[in-house]
Amino acid sequence: MTDYASFFRSVAAVAAEETLPRFRAATPVDNKLAAGFDPVTEADREAERAIRELIGRHYPGHGIIGEEHGALNDGHDDVWVIDPIDGTRAFISGLPVWGTLCGLTHKGDAVAGMMSQPFTGELYYADESGAWYEGPGGNRRIETRKTKVLERAVLFTTTPHLYEGGKRQRFDALESKVRLSRYGCDCYAFAMVASGHVDLACEPGLQSYDIVGLIPIIEQAGGIVTRWDGGPAETGGDILASATRELHEAALAVLNG
Amino acid sequence: MTDYASFFRSVAAVAAEETLPRFRAATPVDNKLAAGFDPVTEADREAERAIRELIGRHYPGHGIIGEEHGALNDGHDDVWVIDPIDGTRAFISGLPVWGTLCGLTHKGDAVAGMMSQPFTGELYYADESGAWYEGPGGNRRIETRKTKVLERAVLFTTTPHLYEGGKRQRFDALESKVRLSRYGCDCYAFAMVASGHVDLACEPGLQSYDIVGLIPIIEQAGGIVTRWDGGPAETGGDILASATRELHEAALAVLNG
Repeated sequence: MTDYASFFRSVAAVAAEETLPRFRAATPVDNKLAAGFDPVTEADREAERAIRELIGRHYPGHGIIGEEHGALNDGHDDVWVIDPIDGTRAFISGLPVWGTLCGLTHKGDAVAGMMSQPFTGELYYADESGAWYEGPGGNRRIETRKTKVLERAVLFTTTPHLYEGGKRQRFDALESKVRLSRYGCDCYAFAMVASGHVDLACEPGLQSYDIVGLIPIIEQAGGIVTRWDGGPAETGGDILASATRELHEAALAVLNG
Repeated sequence: MTDYASFFRSVAAVAAEETLPRFRAATPVDNKLAAGFDPVTEADREAERAIRELIGRHYPGHGIIGEEHGALNDGHDDVWVIDPIDGTRAFISGLPVWGTLCGLTHKGDAVAGMMSQPFTGELYYADESGAWYEGPGGNRRIETRKTKVLERAVLFTTTPHLYEGGKRQRFDALESKVRLSRYGCDCYAFAMVASGHVDLACEPGLQSYDIVGLIPIIEQAGGIVTRWDGGPAETGGDILASATRELHEAALAVLNG
């Protein structure tokens, strides 16, 4: 297994060149929106193009699946899965909690991945060497908390409105058992679980590209991430990430009623 | 009226010295929490002490009201109102959407104010010269959007759970009428209204120190901020900030339904 650190730094850099100039760009002052300028769509499309070019140069032949430009060679053993801007609502609202996600699957298992936030200058990534943070405050290895019971856990979700039908009741049941819940984070929530700031991140209806880049970061930091039914998170779906296995089992028991 | 820009930069700097080293400091790796270390309380207390010293040196005799250390000379015509860390839940969850707030009231009216976010390196401030942003992407004058109708508005609130009793129904009614709602921002939401990224910020049960520093930023950027009953926001209470007067009136009509 390769050390992907320098490759992930390059992915973060080429994506940032496309996303950052368009973040908060549509201000009333320059009135670009009125001229039909759609910064988030442009940023998404151009960042994915740049990441795909980089993958093609470094790992020719590997498969690529992206939110914006579809699938290429996705029958290959090694497939890169990209979400250039996870959290488009945060992006269009000026909040720096969106991220660029890029993960590598080998025969379907996520084995390396990254999330970058260019406004804050943060990079979270993992490969077989462990899970790492680079950014303000200094670079460091990251590790999940040791929280084992729901009563002591802090829970993140983007918004309870995303839970449809019976899922909302099951999420509410989980929320009622934790110490503190917090909304509004998209992919950033999973990075906070991996780096030991919170204990649980729960999201319904994710796509594969919303989670593949994050799975290795959570797992190499000591956490666990699966679908609510306990199946592999790589497929997307209703996803729960937890700081410890014990906490994960307690939360899944509530979510599965 | 004085130009407060350099003073506000100093406030942001002395506060950051106390808050930033304690943000994300209680990781499982160093295990400080287990040793009784409470980073947010320490950061709050020490940042307010540092800001009070700075005010005392620059504006001796002025009144000071702070969340942590109470009131001093608060019968003076000029009173500074401080919240060293607005958004303590964001702070303890590792999210960079908390802020340091400091505002000046003259005979009860907020006339100058600032919000700083040291992890992202952002400073939003206003005095009679206008409302300004300094930070990543370059410094600039800020201005609210021109959105006039709820159907096109983006609404921020920290969490719907904070609306108690009948207020929750009134907030839900407002939320049902806007284009997009977003949770989880604390003071950052008001800065996003002032800088033209979103249209409405709504929070119930604020204290005076939660809002005084933000009022001049919103007003000088062209927005409006009042209590839900239309009274002055300086007192705290249930607060709404809007990009335009027309939007404010439409939203208040729903909230007072």
